[in-house]
Amino acid sequence: MTSHAGLRGSAFLRACRREPVPHTPVWFMRQAGRSLPEYRRVREGVAMLDACRRPDLVTEITLQPVRRYGVDAAILFSDIVVPLKAVGVDLDIKPGVGPVIARPIRAEADLGQLRGLEPDDVGYVTEAVQSLVGELGATPLIGFAGAPFTLASYLVEGGPSRNLENTKALMYGNPGLWELLMTRLADIAGAFLRVQVAAGASAVQLFDSWVGALPAADYARFVRPHSERVLATVGELGVPRIHFGVGTGELLGQLGSAGAEVVGVDFRVPLDEASRRVGPDRALQGNLDPAILFAPWDAVARRAREVLVSGRAAPGHVFNLGHGVLPDTDPDVLARLVDLVHEESAA
Amino acid sequence: MTSHAGLRGSAFLRACRREPVPHTPVWFMRQAGRSLPEYRRVREGVAMLDACRRPDLVTEITLQPVRRYGVDAAILFSDIVVPLKAVGVDLDIKPGVGPVIARPIRAEADLGQLRGLEPDDVGYVTEAVQSLVGELGATPLIGFAGAPFTLASYLVEGGPSRNLENTKALMYGNPGLWELLMTRLADIAGAFLRVQVAAGASAVQLFDSWVGALPAADYARFVRPHSERVLATVGELGVPRIHFGVGTGELLGQLGSAGAEVVGVDFRVPLDEASRRVGPDRALQGNLDPAILFAPWDAVARRAREVLVSGRAAPGHVFNLGHGVLPDTDPDVLARLVDLVHEESAA
Repeated sequence: MTSHAGLRGSAFLRACRREPVPHTPVWFMRQAGRSLPEYRRVREGVAMLDACRRPDLVTEITLQPVRRYGVDAAILFSDIVVPLKAVGVDLDIKPGVGPVIARPIRAEADLGQLRGLEPDDVGYVTEAVQSLVGELGATPLIGFAGAPFTLASYLVEGGPSRNLENTKALMYGNPGLWELLMTRLADIAGAFLRVQVAAGASAVQLFDSWVGALPAADYARFVRPHSERVLATVGELGVPRIHFGVGTGELLGQLGSAGAEVVGVDFRVPLDEASRRVGPDRALQGNLDPAILFAPWDAVARRAREVLVSGRAAPGHVFNLGHGVLPDTDPDVLARLVDLVHEESAA
Repeated sequence: MTSHAGLRGSAFLRACRREPVPHTPVWFMRQAGRSLPEYRRVREGVAMLDACRRPDLVTEITLQPVRRYGVDAAILFSDIVVPLKAVGVDLDIKPGVGPVIARPIRAEADLGQLRGLEPDDVGYVTEAVQSLVGELGATPLIGFAGAPFTLASYLVEGGPSRNLENTKALMYGNPGLWELLMTRLADIAGAFLRVQVAAGASAVQLFDSWVGALPAADYARFVRPHSERVLATVGELGVPRIHFGVGTGELLGQLGSAGAEVVGVDFRVPLDEASRRVGPDRALQGNLDPAILFAPWDAVARRAREVLVSGRAAPGHVFNLGHGVLPDTDPDVLARLVDLVHEESAA
């Protein structure tokens, strides 16, 4: 792996470290994926999990939005269930559905599916990251993992779920088993992030997408210690850590103190208010509503400017959406948005 | 219609009016419906919209949970799209999907689908409410309507939607058309509530289920004036008004001042904190997480007691779930829950 001279001074990494930036850096959650015609072409006939395990495809798909948009960071193309598959969990990603788990985890005996993750289990990830770091030059690569709660929700429900009733029944009804499950998932998520950083990723994002389904007191008791452990595991590696969830207005203070340098904020709370809740020593990432990209450009531009203004209240700001790019998004709108962010924030 | 002597002194109506109660009243959103075997029996071979328009079925289905659980209030069995169907919108409720609109509203010409609602359009509702009031005696009947934003989301998207991208594109991109649409929907919702109160309903609930998808400033500008108008329309009728949405932590203050006497709270914000946000002159309704009902009884009971304790911070408390009863809920757990609430809150 080669280290690029401009990398450390990149706008993205500087914003994460709360240092002055030449312009507000911007990237988009799910920037690589279904909204891009070039993505749909390379994915033709290739199942999602197979694509995630082919270094050539991971490299190409990860680079596509960097080429097209000139975003300030790439994010490894993968899925939060990849490390689960890698330790032997029988699962598949079904088109139009999401992850489907063959034997959902409901009892202690089911935990046998979750052994620790070794770097050799995900050699294809190491290979893809190394290849990407070479190709990306001065553009940082973000590694990522699903946080223990969100991983647990898929494993317990057996797939995507609107109400997480089985997950909550286990968490509230069998705290001992919950603890064991979350501990194993924290180990796996931490190991998966370490592999990516060891291979050259410049930052990591821990996605706890569904944690907004919990009241703050339950988050503190059942979830936060495990997320903290994942973040601590990569802390000594010296790369910025981003922590994101959806609908986390009630949880922002706790997300801010769980260990990450950057807190991702969804579109429901303005960044100036989010910064008050998160605290003064954390950068923010966000938070344009991805649904707004379906409005005429004038409305998009007006909102994007509001996000830039609001983001000045934080000691560092990485522009992003408040959730992932929606599949039917027009890539041309994202391209214009990158230009707008760069131009209007230029020092 | 006959007026029952005990009705006005019922625990439910007293709690809504912030008067002392003999016990905390309890009912459940979606208490009538799929979780009850007796409901599934009477619905066999009858489409949802047909069931909503047959006074005999509406009466029977509305009474089922009152008989089984001894809840403190009944809620009219209906659907938020019933008044839309009644004014001629071409729509259906598809099993396992939800409302499907034949011609989604995206342009001014589409507004022609939405004329005003006359009482004669929903004679079956008047008939069902009158029949129910006779049957229910001292148990109050709650009428209900969908709030303009949630109705608009179905009409614009054409059906249920996870991200509401078309709704938001219209709202942010064409505020003039949005205003016209919301005004018509407020008229329809207000008229639908007035019909139910005129026929004998003792309270109303305005459901704005999906409004938690908006930041507070957008709610204030694009939604709240219309919800206020609906609530004002029934204000002079002298029945308590309940206003509920999901994921409304950021909006509770505004929901509290939109006109309703009672604010429904989802399970993400504890009732004591919700009462601080809503203000001292509003009763609260909620807020046990419906997913918790899938945990062992001990966990359910512990949480229910926490809700009761937290609810004492509000000047009036109607016990409910923080969202509707989930379809796979065990009715026996709901029956035990009603007993627990009554016993543990008895003065």
